[in-house]
Amino acid sequence: MTLSNSDDLALRERLLGMTTATATNMLNLRGYQNQFMTGARPIQTGGRACGRALTVRFGPARPDMTFPQDERHLEPLWVAIESIVPGDFLVLDCGGDVQAGTTGDILAARIKRRGGVGIVVDGALRDAAQIRDLVHLPCWSAGVHGSGFIAALVCLDWGLTVRCFGVTVRSGDYILADDDGLVAIPAALADEVATDGGETELKETFIRGLVEQGVPLSECYPPTADVLRQFHEWQAAHGH
Amino acid sequence: MTLSNSDDLALRERLLGMTTATATNMLNLRGYQNQFMTGARPIQTGGRACGRALTVRFGPARPDMTFPQDERHLEPLWVAIESIVPGDFLVLDCGGDVQAGTTGDILAARIKRRGGVGIVVDGALRDAAQIRDLVHLPCWSAGVHGSGFIAALVCLDWGLTVRCFGVTVRSGDYILADDDGLVAIPAALADEVATDGGETELKETFIRGLVEQGVPLSECYPPTADVLRQFHEWQAAHGH
Amino acid sequence: MTLSNSDDLALRERLLGMTTATATNMLNLRGYQNQFMTGARPIQTGGRACGRALTVRFGPARPDMTFPQDERHLEPLWVAIESIVPGDFLVLDCGGDVQAGTTGDILAARIKRRGGVGIVVDGALRDAAQIRDLVHLPCWSAGVHGSGFIAALVCLDWGLTVRCFGVTVRSGDYILADDDGLVAIPAALADEVATDGGETELKETFIRGLVEQGVPLSECYPPTADVLRQFHEWQAAHGH
Amino acid sequence: MTLSNSDDLALRERLLGMTTATATNMLNLRGYQNQFMTGARPIQTGGRACGRALTVRFGPARPDMTFPQDERHLEPLWVAIESIVPGDFLVLDCGGDVQAGTTGDILAARIKRRGGVGIVVDGALRDAAQIRDLVHLPCWSAGVHGSGFIAALVCLDWGLTVRCFGVTVRSGDYILADDDGLVAIPAALADEVATDGGETELKETFIRGLVEQGVPLSECYPPTADVLRQFHEWQAAHGH
Amino acid sequence: MTLSNSDDLALRERLLGMTTATATNMLNLRGYQNQFMTGARPIQTGGRACGRALTVRFGPARPDMTFPQDERHLEPLWVAIESIVPGDFLVLDCGGDVQAGTTGDILAARIKRRGGVGIVVDGALRDAAQIRDLVHLPCWSAGVHGSGFIAALVCLDWGLTVRCFGVTVRSGDYILADDDGLVAIPAALADEVATDGGETELKETFIRGLVEQGVPLSECYPPTADVLRQFHEWQAAHGH
Amino acid sequence: MTLSNSDDLALRERLLGMTTATATNMLNLRGYQNQFMTGARPIQTGGRACGRALTVRFGPARPDMTFPQDERHLEPLWVAIESIVPGDFLVLDCGGDVQAGTTGDILAARIKRRGGVGIVVDGALRDAAQIRDLVHLPCWSAGVHGSGFIAALVCLDWGLTVRCFGVTVRSGDYILADDDGLVAIPAALADEVATDGGETELKETFIRGLVEQGVPLSECYPPTADVLRQFHEWQAAHGH
Repeated sequence: MTLSNSDDLALRERLLGMTTATATNMLNLRGYQNQFMTGARPIQTGGRACGRALTVRFGPARPDMTFPQDERHLEPLWVAIESIVPGDFLVLDCGGDVQAGTTGDILAARIKRRGGVGIVVDGALRDAAQIRDLVHLPCWSAGVHGSGFIAALVCLDWGLTVRCFGVTVRSGDYILADDDGLVAIPAALADEVATDGGETELKETFIRGLVEQGVPLSECYPPTADVLRQFHEWQAAHGH
Repeated sequence: MTLSNSDDLALRERLLGMTTATATNMLNLRGYQNQFMTGARPIQTGGRACGRALTVRFGPARPDMTFPQDERHLEPLWVAIESIVPGDFLVLDCGGDVQAGTTGDILAARIKRRGGVGIVVDGALRDAAQIRDLVHLPCWSAGVHGSGFIAALVCLDWGLTVRCFGVTVRSGDYILADDDGLVAIPAALADEVATDGGETELKETFIRGLVEQGVPLSECYPPTADVLRQFHEWQAAHGH
Repeated sequence: MTLSNSDDLALRERLLGMTTATATNMLNLRGYQNQFMTGARPIQTGGRACGRALTVRFGPARPDMTFPQDERHLEPLWVAIESIVPGDFLVLDCGGDVQAGTTGDILAARIKRRGGVGIVVDGALRDAAQIRDLVHLPCWSAGVHGSGFIAALVCLDWGLTVRCFGVTVRSGDYILADDDGLVAIPAALADEVATDGGETELKETFIRGLVEQGVPLSECYPPTADVLRQFHEWQAAHGH
Repeated sequence: MTLSNSDDLALRERLLGMTTATATNMLNLRGYQNQFMTGARPIQTGGRACGRALTVRFGPARPDMTFPQDERHLEPLWVAIESIVPGDFLVLDCGGDVQAGTTGDILAARIKRRGGVGIVVDGALRDAAQIRDLVHLPCWSAGVHGSGFIAALVCLDWGLTVRCFGVTVRSGDYILADDDGLVAIPAALADEVATDGGETELKETFIRGLVEQGVPLSECYPPTADVLRQFHEWQAAHGH
Repeated sequence: MTLSNSDDLALRERLLGMTTATATNMLNLRGYQNQFMTGARPIQTGGRACGRALTVRFGPARPDMTFPQDERHLEPLWVAIESIVPGDFLVLDCGGDVQAGTTGDILAARIKRRGGVGIVVDGALRDAAQIRDLVHLPCWSAGVHGSGFIAALVCLDWGLTVRCFGVTVRSGDYILADDDGLVAIPAALADEVATDGGETELKETFIRGLVEQGVPLSECYPPTADVLRQFHEWQAAHGH
Repeated sequence: MTLSNSDDLALRERLLGMTTATATNMLNLRGYQNQFMTGARPIQTGGRACGRALTVRFGPARPDMTFPQDERHLEPLWVAIESIVPGDFLVLDCGGDVQAGTTGDILAARIKRRGGVGIVVDGALRDAAQIRDLVHLPCWSAGVHGSGFIAALVCLDWGLTVRCFGVTVRSGDYILADDDGLVAIPAALADEVATDGGETELKETFIRGLVEQGVPLSECYPPTADVLRQFHEWQAAHGH
């Protein structure tokens, strides 16, 4: 299922209209209990991004892989970055190893230049302050480290299914990210998550309004039939 | 020992006059070595709160408890929230499990509407950014997760003695919270902590002033008899 | 190798001209793979500091050491602080124990008054918010705790080689710290790190500029001979 | 649902006929994904036990609970132990805290004398070697510690629903334990787990026999209709 | 570099003549600092095995991968097992997740029947006691769990480079395992590790003999020229 | 306080007459709450040892310390081992780092030859199986690793106060170790611990006998005055 560029852009915009919590809830309701990345922390405040997962895998360094004898060897991370098309979201799988930074400000700048919209790494970034303040590419990670990745890691491959913060991520999943964290949305479900999630966001805003006016939980959350009726009237009246 | 509403409010105000570090120190001096919650992180900057602990306990989900057959079953978390009286501080015990968010923006809004002053959870919150930016209820947690708690947890009960970030908390303990973390003050000690802690805050401010003027530690910290005399003169002169 | 005060100040200023990532990279290139402190978190944003390591060691409390019978006993932490000369950076080794705060606002104020430039502790600070907002001394730690250290720790000694966030630190190492973390630079290497690191910073800024203009990684990072030539021309033209 | 003593004994005997892995599988098939205690380690080799959960909860010590002023206070752990009836399995919830031993050889001897069949604690035991070698009561724990629990813990209560090694355990659940670990079987499901699990054990033994004779997985595991037919013939022929 | 069956068998036999510590040391001397699997625990005592790595990767379960719609889908773990040739050593990469058992007694029996010599999993086994006592296949793991893997994991693929207990393992590496743990020996180095390691084992046995006779470390470890001369004489005399 | 050799030997023999749990209890009663090493695991079953702590400290490797330029440099671990006198117990402080083995079979053989009675390391051993089966020196550790320590650690110094498994250990403390773990007994308390602990062991054996005969806890544990009288009669009758 490949979308045209404009359809993909529209879909990502719709997903950006909801929080990661709402998108996670939509997936939970469809039997996907394990799509939120537990423990990823943003390096910026207020960052939001949505893109298609472009996956890269790292492992602990070993000399025969870090310094391969084949002269035609291309560093997979470089190849992956040069393969980015606008709307891609880099998902780096380090197995939780934070002993070296996978991506610094120069790679981040290139990722942004090619249209990448964000990075998540279950390991460390390098130059996190500069990525945040100079490159302005939203990133989520398990930590920061001063070493380049070659000091402790080797890039294994890219494009494969990976693990990241306890989630199995396939290339092409939609990654939605905000201050709370990240959720991997299987591509086949992205459209219905966008539709139902948008409706849910509205409904929860409506209910929060009721709560702020003093309505007790038993009368509005989960919403009663009466509250749902009120919501649909309000929705119709406001043209949502 | 139950205080009248106004006495309780006054006591909480006095406790808010000191840092969690000072309150912890007052408890240490009385033989309570383990009242500071180690590892709780605020979701906001500059938040401060003091309230009486209202405890809730969660456990890993199991179908017979998540979906009980008894139709009269009331979700304990809902009951606990509707039991809040002004000045309560929710203390949620998840056993450190951050695989699902216990409280989102709607529950937080209801907690605030009923007069709750804060939440601490040794697990995850949901919608943390919205609780911080829209609901404005100060919260401390071990993490953030996009799933509602039903995805991985079940609410066991409320009002019992619980564990939270390494502290045994009884319902009715005073919880004092600031950027540094949280401390549970046994109700029977709250008044004397408020009194002695206030004095200690003043004294430490006075000593820090001396230090900033260049007095070496050996002459002022811990305070010598001479420094204490100077402090009491200063205190008298300034009407504290 | 002891520098004169002015040489030391000049060296620290030059080191402050680079990020911890660049300094770490310079050390990696010289065979030092393990000089970046993994996991230290700043209590402030935008803090930067460079100083010579003054080390202090803590251990779990035991009565015969916490309350020694020898009246001439001096608390090693107090002695260490009173030994600070301008440009020292306190490195506190707690073995990762965050059950008590090692340094509060009064000690931090004294450290600053004596010319200390920063603190790193692989344990907890106390009064972190006040150190940040009132004392303005940049600090990095593993956490915050309300108890003074006497509640759970004993200060063992100072001036010895210590471990801190996975790095062996010798008294006299240069500690460079920024938002990304901290790196320990052996004194014998500090001058060449300062020189080569400064050059590297410039080069990376130049390359990031190329990347932002759209040059692919294969043509500029790592830099080709042509890029290096362009860089040296640019460097000459701009008087760096 | 309370069984007569003889029915309960018969049920526990039937459950002892299967491994914890088989019982866990039976529960997984019924939608209970989280009943196996992850990380519990036996202190003996070859120990097996099955009993009804008798729960006890501990928390970090605090003086007002460790030394209550009420003279009529009874230590909950002592009360719980004296409440044991034959076939009970003690489930101690320490929140993972291994800083003190909950149960030593004397308490273990009393537990055994009253008919207790085993102990699991997500904290530490004391005198583990003596419990194993002198008392001969099978135990599973997260560690061993030399201190009695009063040094770091307080017993909160007993008989409530608890958490233990990531499982929510209700008093009355059947606990089945072997070298691999422990599983909590809700009482309402115990009979059908016993029945189906017994059948599954036989089937898996039969299939393992086929595998050992060289039958490839695709022809026998999961079993084909043909293998199931062979199994039922074998079962009939051998009177199971 | 593919060896004939008999050459491979001979090589594995020679590697079995040394401890994992000696093989690790041989690799350290060649610049491979990170080939020993940190934290793997044997389920048996006295087990030893050497084989060629056959890798399998698992990730957290997600419905679209656990229950794929393509009817031609083959479970990768089953395919991997049926691809075993004598002398293979299964290396299962679970990213440290011990929430479900990857391999039980039936799969272990099939692995053994096809000539597999051992299993290492940086996650959990199922039926560990039966694998040890009935199947007699040596295994190393991070834990044991009662659930089959489908409860929490999905098998992603096999034959790729994986991570296992902090080591990057390529299919075809030689895995040497004993009570102390496991080491991954790159195939290109296996022959020289076998040769030099055998010599080192002899030398260390000789030196340990000297030590037991009372020779101080300064005279024999590391061996002096004189000790090496004695060793070679002893070696010649004993026909090693 | 230095004992003559025979007094020291007699004291160690008396301490060996009690479990680590009893010795820990004796220290708890004297205000030492934190002398038991939490998490140390024996490499053998049934090992027991008591000796005076000889401490050694390790840190993460760095080239200027691993390969010092001073030719007169002596490896501190070698010096420490050659300083052993009979009855010493090696206490190695690695800060919990298990990335390399500190001591292998040859060093262990030398330690034993010089009269060392045991090793505890809050890091890894090397050749653990050989130390257990060939050298027969009882050891406790946090793990096993195949690399020699030079691969990841540097020996810093010996004879200083260290941390080990959460305990501050001074050179000269008595270390008592058994299957349950290890306890550090300050030298000044060793004699009274030996005396009171021996009495406590007898008393607990007596009480366990009562419990096994069916006496309820309320009548014997903690012992009533009547039980204590019975115990003293029994003690007198049996000549203890």
